[in-house]
Amino acid sequence: MKENLFEHDVAHVAHAELLTPKPEASERFFVELLGMEVEARENGSVYLRGFGDYERYCLKLTEAPTTGLGHLALRARSDAALKRRVAALEQAGSGLGWVDGDIGHGPAYRFCDPDGHRFEIYYETERYVPEDALKPSMKNQPQRYGGRGVSVRRFDHLNLLTREIAANRAFMQEHLGFRLREKVQLDDGREAGAWMSLGILAHEVIYVLEAYPTRGRLHHLAFWVDSREEVLRSADLFLDHDVPIEAAPSKHTASQSFYCYVIEPGGNRVEITTGGYLVFDPDAPPTVWSEAEYARGPAWGAKLPASFNTYGMPPFEGEAVDAPLQGGARLARAEAAIR
Amino acid sequence: MKENLFEHDVAHVAHAELLTPKPEASERFFVELLGMEVEARENGSVYLRGFGDYERYCLKLTEAPTTGLGHLALRARSDAALKRRVAALEQAGSGLGWVDGDIGHGPAYRFCDPDGHRFEIYYETERYVPEDALKPSMKNQPQRYGGRGVSVRRFDHLNLLTREIAANRAFMQEHLGFRLREKVQLDDGREAGAWMSLGILAHEVIYVLEAYPTRGRLHHLAFWVDSREEVLRSADLFLDHDVPIEAAPSKHTASQSFYCYVIEPGGNRVEITTGGYLVFDPDAPPTVWSEAEYARGPAWGAKLPASFNTYGMPPFEGEAVDAPLQGGARLARAEAAIR
Amino acid sequence: MKENLFEHDVAHVAHAELLTPKPEASERFFVELLGMEVEARENGSVYLRGFGDYERYCLKLTEAPTTGLGHLALRARSDAALKRRVAALEQAGSGLGWVDGDIGHGPAYRFCDPDGHRFEIYYETERYVPEDALKPSMKNQPQRYGGRGVSVRRFDHLNLLTREIAANRAFMQEHLGFRLREKVQLDDGREAGAWMSLGILAHEVIYVLEAYPTRGRLHHLAFWVDSREEVLRSADLFLDHDVPIEAAPSKHTASQSFYCYVIEPGGNRVEITTGGYLVFDPDAPPTVWSEAEYARGPAWGAKLPASFNTYGMPPFEGEAVDAPLQGGARLARAEAAIR
Amino acid sequence: MKENLFEHDVAHVAHAELLTPKPEASERFFVELLGMEVEARENGSVYLRGFGDYERYCLKLTEAPTTGLGHLALRARSDAALKRRVAALEQAGSGLGWVDGDIGHGPAYRFCDPDGHRFEIYYETERYVPEDALKPSMKNQPQRYGGRGVSVRRFDHLNLLTREIAANRAFMQEHLGFRLREKVQLDDGREAGAWMSLGILAHEVIYVLEAYPTRGRLHHLAFWVDSREEVLRSADLFLDHDVPIEAAPSKHTASQSFYCYVIEPGGNRVEITTGGYLVFDPDAPPTVWSEAEYARGPAWGAKLPASFNTYGMPPFEGEAVDAPLQGGARLARAEAAIR
Repeated sequence: MKENLFEHDVAHVAHAELLTPKPEASERFFVELLGMEVEARENGSVYLRGFGDYERYCLKLTEAPTTGLGHLALRARSDAALKRRVAALEQAGSGLGWVDGDIGHGPAYRFCDPDGHRFEIYYETERYVPEDALKPSMKNQPQRYGGRGVSVRRFDHLNLLTREIAANRAFMQEHLGFRLREKVQLDDGREAGAWMSLGILAHEVIYVLEAYPTRGRLHHLAFWVDSREEVLRSADLFLDHDVPIEAAPSKHTASQSFYCYVIEPGGNRVEITTGGYLVFDPDAPPTVWSEAEYARGPAWGAKLPASFNTYGMPPFEGEAVDAPLQGGARLARAEAAIR
Repeated sequence: MKENLFEHDVAHVAHAELLTPKPEASERFFVELLGMEVEARENGSVYLRGFGDYERYCLKLTEAPTTGLGHLALRARSDAALKRRVAALEQAGSGLGWVDGDIGHGPAYRFCDPDGHRFEIYYETERYVPEDALKPSMKNQPQRYGGRGVSVRRFDHLNLLTREIAANRAFMQEHLGFRLREKVQLDDGREAGAWMSLGILAHEVIYVLEAYPTRGRLHHLAFWVDSREEVLRSADLFLDHDVPIEAAPSKHTASQSFYCYVIEPGGNRVEITTGGYLVFDPDAPPTVWSEAEYARGPAWGAKLPASFNTYGMPPFEGEAVDAPLQGGARLARAEAAIR
Repeated sequence: MKENLFEHDVAHVAHAELLTPKPEASERFFVELLGMEVEARENGSVYLRGFGDYERYCLKLTEAPTTGLGHLALRARSDAALKRRVAALEQAGSGLGWVDGDIGHGPAYRFCDPDGHRFEIYYETERYVPEDALKPSMKNQPQRYGGRGVSVRRFDHLNLLTREIAANRAFMQEHLGFRLREKVQLDDGREAGAWMSLGILAHEVIYVLEAYPTRGRLHHLAFWVDSREEVLRSADLFLDHDVPIEAAPSKHTASQSFYCYVIEPGGNRVEITTGGYLVFDPDAPPTVWSEAEYARGPAWGAKLPASFNTYGMPPFEGEAVDAPLQGGARLARAEAAIR
Repeated sequence: MKENLFEHDVAHVAHAELLTPKPEASERFFVELLGMEVEARENGSVYLRGFGDYERYCLKLTEAPTTGLGHLALRARSDAALKRRVAALEQAGSGLGWVDGDIGHGPAYRFCDPDGHRFEIYYETERYVPEDALKPSMKNQPQRYGGRGVSVRRFDHLNLLTREIAANRAFMQEHLGFRLREKVQLDDGREAGAWMSLGILAHEVIYVLEAYPTRGRLHHLAFWVDSREEVLRSADLFLDHDVPIEAAPSKHTASQSFYCYVIEPGGNRVEITTGGYLVFDPDAPPTVWSEAEYARGPAWGAKLPASFNTYGMPPFEGEAVDAPLQGGARLARAEAAIR
């Protein structure tokens, strides 16, 4: 195997920009139920952090006509690494050019994956300095633990929809150093899912199949808690605060992570996640699931609702969240088959 | 409200006799996976205990041509209480007479509920005395914690099938002092479920609707663990040891308990359970669920498979466990509607 | 054994009145950190509830010159049971007479244990009816789960200091139906601790040795959470919100419960508790710990600080909380030996 | 900051060789209580694995006259990376030369840190292939989950004693790419502890102060479980199986990990660990604890016994484990001060 000394150029998935047509209700969801803190506000965006974030925020919530991903930001390992990645992206023809930066970080280079999802990559950042009321008792922690609602620690991963999984995951592997951890191989040779990570986590970016003839949609953003008990507890909270639970807590087969999926008031799917496994093997071969294996669903036999395979952000024309989603999790079923 | 000084005559649900056509495989399931200890063997039965049982056992596993409940044993609070309950049962015409007792307890009076499920009630018992290898470090505990597999603490409750819920739950209330905690009231006035207990627990005996024209069937036996984490862990164990998971861990609406349902190798449905709530109010009014409310299913929107509403022990003619149950939990669907 | 048909006359420990010289800071502690709700205010008292209380409140917080127990309220099982208990208490010469009741409950009879701790017993009560914002999604629950801070479910038990344990526990057993679950027998024949309960819980009222020549002091009030994970999480919350942790989470030997002890801003010791065991045996013999066994301390070898054996509420003359208690848990050590 | 393209040459801490004078009793501890599987035996060593190991084993248990570390094995990221590290170690004069390999891995280069602890580094490895009885249900997992005892997933980190912390941690940083996550700076300028890792974990190798005039001693090996609940459960298991608990479960300040320390029958200190935090920042500055801060001890105020600061493996002359360690955790206190 030829050695790639640049495979660690990208350090980690840093923050996501999420679009919402209901900015106040969405902010209340992230602050009051997920327990995040407002770190800044600017130009119609609110910047939110989990208690474990070393940077100033992990979520930029932006008012927009509809839902979906604004962009996903990656942090490069160094200035030299950033320049190498930008050169590679430019050579690939995926680049959109530099922007001056944003609250909390320096110049960023914009690009798209083949499906059209928007990304930014930057190196210079501001480490979070808590105001007095949020100072932690332990100085190896960036912020005190607030214990409000779910109390998520940090943004963990995101899942993007695309009809061309192989091309998109190859793009992430070749130009950004993502390693493929798991994939789904359909009987007809196409791929139906790809779980990728930069370090030892089992997933940081996921692609799964887009059900509709559209591009650039988001499947979900996932926020981390430290225990399965907290995921279960989140379900009780969501239930009693009228947040529709799309998929009740259970364990995924791919990535082995433990999940609870809800629809935040703006209409975006959000996952509370924990668990999974770490990949210490530097040459770990990806796990390849056959179509039949993947069709079995979550690890213990729980069922994901049909909406899980079709609903994305922004919603496709005519795709709506059925009422009541609560307790039954029925989103509009797409007429189109998944393939 | 007229005072009933005898409402505490029955102290608790003591043990269940479970029938199995595959005694060796069933015993391996309860010993190796549920972590129970063999306390005695006699006449084709093996007597098994959880680490928290103050009596010698909570499960009598008996070889038989098919699955189902042998009997459920109740312990009376005192000898006088036992005599009062026997008198009441005889007057109700439900008595079957005395038996000499069994391993671990003294004379027992046999009776049936209206549906024909068999019960025994006794007072004299033997407190468990551990052999050296099972001595606990803490003398307020009956046995050491073994940590083998699921490691259930004790038998918690059982669920019985009947087509006449109102009559059966009234029998338990009137003659044995069970208090009704929750019930399901169908739109046509019939009942579809009753959760009853003797003390402050939310359920010790449950009746749910029998799907077939038959009598005396068991829906499940439930064994207690102390945390939801242990229920989740049990699902991992069952998955990796080829025990079919019928319903993946989630939270019930009625009783608020946390569950995992599996089919043990003999064919009996077994629940690993924890959680629920305690009823401190001595006059607590039962929660009454409407048909529509009950139809919503488990608390967080998880789905119970169709088999959950039809499969019972012993299986009704033609009712079989489909293969593979694993990961999909598909038992034969009854032709008959639930009502 | 002679049958006592009245042993269940007292249904449960209902609520405690806690005195505080810093009512605002104490209220903030119970509301913001313990997650309780303010149900009522009257005459300098605030009435607080856990999310699982079927009555309106479980804690009455009352402004006073110092800390300590106002009273502990017990709920009788029926009106007849209440009258029987009052007759017994009057005959014992312990009665203080009737009061009209309080917010949320009807006429109550006041009495003292031999040590002078104040109690009330009543039957008539108001079941909690939540305002809209606190309505639960599940109607077998009294209130929605708020998820604020520790989010305690209910008041669980209290621990009273006395120099005459045998006399006080006998009083509770004989006149109120408490059953003795565990006790500590010193080598000189005196008792050093008694754990008692009314139902199947391992403890609802505890007596431990008073270190000083004084009477009527409180050792702690304990509030229930459902899992050990939540107790651990509470410690993180207390640490980051400057609440002194007197004893870090660990497991008691007596009662097997899992604990975290803190000093609320008013100066009262509060426990977050879960676990323990249930006592199903109607004739369960108490566990008797010898002096040497008890001296071993908590189950896994954790150490309780010296203050745990001396500090009580109200503080004895000259007894003060050292600074910093945090992270070291050093309260003033009493000069007097424990005996 | 000058870019170091080789900082990821070492992929992870792979396995440890532990010496024991009681090989049978030690093996029973790791197999029956920690739930590890025997993967191979050869030349007086037994090779043991956790259920999550991708390589064949993570612990080599070797019969020896006394306790201590045989060696710690590191896996290089590639063959080129291995050669670079060997060149660097040779240049530093720390090399001991190549060995042919061992069960499960290829050629390894031996070296010592300045204190004299033995290490090996290799690249070629064998991925674990389970026998039928240990096949997992999920093919992204290397082995089925056995659920025997503590059921550790993998070896997590180790802690080495040295009187020269600065020199040893600098060696690990400069020649092997370890990054310093936290350190303790004494008032006199010396260091008292260093927590280092190769990837995003908070610690994989730790140095803490050696209390005696000796070299090459081990403080402990730590094995990973996924939840704090499992660490608590391990304490119950150890208590009931006569394994001395030196430090009851609680939370460390440095690394924020959750621990339980025991002494295995051979005399080695073993930690069950979980929690901690992940370090995503590629330039994360180390947390520096002052002497006063470090003296505060574990996060919530729990106390570590004196033995924790003195006892190491092999024991220093005259240093012995006191009886009973159980429930009190008193090892012989060294006469020598810590510094």
